[in-house]
Amino acid sequence: MRISGITVTPVAFPDLPLLNSVGVHEPWALRTIVEVRTDEGISGLGETYGDIGHLNRVRTAAPELIGLDAHDLNGMRARVARALGGEAGSDRHGLTGRLTVESTVDRVFSAFEVAAWDIRGKALGRPVADLLGGAVRDAVPYSAYLFYKWDRHPGGEPDEWGEALDPGGVVEQARAMIDRHGFGSIKLKGGVFPPEREVEAVRALREAFPDHPLRLDPNAAWTPETSLRVAAELDGVLEYLEDPAPEIEGMARVAAEAPMPLATNMCVIAFEHIPPAVAAGAVQVILSDHHYWGGLARSRELAAICRTFGIGLSMHSNSHLGISLAAMTHLAAATPDLDYACDTHYPWNRADDVITRPFTFVDGAIPVPDRPGLGVELDRDALARLAENYRGCGIVQRDDTGYMRTVDPTYERKRPRW
Amino acid sequence: MRISGITVTPVAFPDLPLLNSVGVHEPWALRTIVEVRTDEGISGLGETYGDIGHLNRVRTAAPELIGLDAHDLNGMRARVARALGGEAGSDRHGLTGRLTVESTVDRVFSAFEVAAWDIRGKALGRPVADLLGGAVRDAVPYSAYLFYKWDRHPGGEPDEWGEALDPGGVVEQARAMIDRHGFGSIKLKGGVFPPEREVEAVRALREAFPDHPLRLDPNAAWTPETSLRVAAELDGVLEYLEDPAPEIEGMARVAAEAPMPLATNMCVIAFEHIPPAVAAGAVQVILSDHHYWGGLARSRELAAICRTFGIGLSMHSNSHLGISLAAMTHLAAATPDLDYACDTHYPWNRADDVITRPFTFVDGAIPVPDRPGLGVELDRDALARLAENYRGCGIVQRDDTGYMRTVDPTYERKRPRW
Ligand SMILES: [Mg+2]
Ligand SMILES: [Mg+2]
Repeated sequence: MRISGITVTPVAFPDLPLLNSVGVHEPWALRTIVEVRTDEGISGLGETYGDIGHLNRVRTAAPELIGLDAHDLNGMRARVARALGGEAGSDRHGLTGRLTVESTVDRVFSAFEVAAWDIRGKALGRPVADLLGGAVRDAVPYSAYLFYKWDRHPGGEPDEWGEALDPGGVVEQARAMIDRHGFGSIKLKGGVFPPEREVEAVRALREAFPDHPLRLDPNAAWTPETSLRVAAELDGVLEYLEDPAPEIEGMARVAAEAPMPLATNMCVIAFEHIPPAVAAGAVQVILSDHHYWGGLARSRELAAICRTFGIGLSMHSNSHLGISLAAMTHLAAATPDLDYACDTHYPWNRADDVITRPFTFVDGAIPVPDRPGLGVELDRDALARLAENYRGCGIVQRDDTGYMRTVDPTYERKRPRW
Repeated sequence: MRISGITVTPVAFPDLPLLNSVGVHEPWALRTIVEVRTDEGISGLGETYGDIGHLNRVRTAAPELIGLDAHDLNGMRARVARALGGEAGSDRHGLTGRLTVESTVDRVFSAFEVAAWDIRGKALGRPVADLLGGAVRDAVPYSAYLFYKWDRHPGGEPDEWGEALDPGGVVEQARAMIDRHGFGSIKLKGGVFPPEREVEAVRALREAFPDHPLRLDPNAAWTPETSLRVAAELDGVLEYLEDPAPEIEGMARVAAEAPMPLATNMCVIAFEHIPPAVAAGAVQVILSDHHYWGGLARSRELAAICRTFGIGLSMHSNSHLGISLAAMTHLAAATPDLDYACDTHYPWNRADDVITRPFTFVDGAIPVPDRPGLGVELDRDALARLAENYRGCGIVQRDDTGYMRTVDPTYERKRPRW
């Protein structure tokens, strides 16, 4: 079953003005959809980032995979590595950490790897979770992922979520999201306002939702000193504090004294970051993400490392569509050691998905698809519309900071900010 | 594709008087053959240890797996864990390290896990290596595994390998084994004679085989001080020194000053041993072994941990038959980070294998089977003969020390001995 063709399609879909430590989400979120075809007529889907540098690397790697067996993950990764020629990508939007040569390969490889699992599942007539060792849960719980936000994009119409710039707005957003989807955990994206204001919002959430585990993620906007002050104030309130301070060294300083576990998707985003993080005791929870950990098999390897070193495992998300959600769900379903509800931006999507049957949360969880492969089907009309969005939207590189500056020209990217 | 039946068959096959740090191999080696059948008529094979305690645990777990899907590795392991009820096995023969509850589960689970991969490969018409991510090598190199030995069992006839009790005998054995099988690496099992004598043997091997990488494995028979003396004497001669001293602490003391990497299959034999070994810098190479690391998938996890922490990966062996060799070969073929030729006792087997086409080394390597699954077929007549051996041989528990005492009643098990 050899790879006979690969189609790489950049897409864009509407996004809301969600605030974070480097600015605000632009009106369009970018993704790349990968369709891998085989000589046996079975094809598979992958979804990955849409930033131009990454898109170009995906496009560079794709033709090199033609002719490989769809089972040959080792061969595929080696071809991707060769095609990229030792280049390391850069994190231009500022929300993740240091990319390395290996993690750049993993990012590109991942989209094809997921498609290969989809193909293998379809060929065998089994869901991907079965191929990953079997689902240990029927449905994968996700968290309500809250954002400070404006009520509209500059110059636009108000959106259905409204404004959330204070504790009241945040609680209202949580209530709307939980009413709609049933989530049993809550995450607040912080790093937007001075920490005291965000502590207040977390306290308001605790009061409104006394039984929901809570997380706060300021994306490394704080110094270790600020982080420790917040950590002390939120003692007993948070299940984990996510990336309070920058870098392994900063996180280690916080971890040494903070009363709650620290989580990260910023200072440990590649296998080579794990040994120094372990040695420093920097993190107690790693947020896995198959998009940058090199696909589903390597995400399972990360899970094994976490299990072995007594590190908790959760799951990270960027703005994404249904192919990613399917892959996340199969992976999470088959990973026994996943200790926390996964993050997802999916509830923020407003319009088209690229799959024929977009997912619906049931009691805050996604039931594991029981159809072969990922269990999703490409909606070609929708794909065409989203590809048209991409061509028309004028964005090729996520730039939350630049977009914020169109509103506030004095806005500066600073890490740490407080 | 559900598991409909499992047959567990203890077998024995003739073994030679191979010496080690706890005594000498008895005339019979024990193994357990596991055959897992499914409701679709496809069956799979596994091979594991034959010691009575382990055999009983395998027999206890087997019926609990009936009805599970053959893809459901997570479910199978959970059922095995439940069936064993938190008991930890013990290492009565004295050649490995501390067993834990988890590693006892892994030992039992492994035989079924391998059979499940065999079934999955057969169902799909693909070799197991393909399912593990694809072979990165066409053939898996093994090392010539030399032993000090007597020329015969007490009271028996001389065997075809003759005596090897001094450097000349060891070199002669190496030459015979390399002439016959073409091995490109050499391992000497030590811990039998005072270290100076074993150093002499290694030097003789170096002289006779100037280009063959050499290893020496005294099975923790030395103190750290003795280990460092030997390490200094063999500087530049060994590719690695295997388990010179007992326990992580002892190995760490040696590793701090030894000029060559230290390898282990004694102080790190379960996932929970890895963090303290990493923290202490105790080992530079881990010998994986799917029989105790919980099967092929978990052995891949071990490989990922080694890759991540910059630890080399090699492969360990006990006396075994062809089903184990097939599994070892598929696993090694699909593991990119396997840095060394694998160990195997297979060349010491004299008579029946339980498979219809026993393996042949080609230039010191086993070509990766290209038939579906493990690529081996049970020889039911041979299985019956080896099962009859088991019933007749009177051995149910490997006891190299007890057997040595029948020759030398004053022989004592000591660790370290020198
Ligand atoms: Mg985060
Ligand atoms: Mg050894």
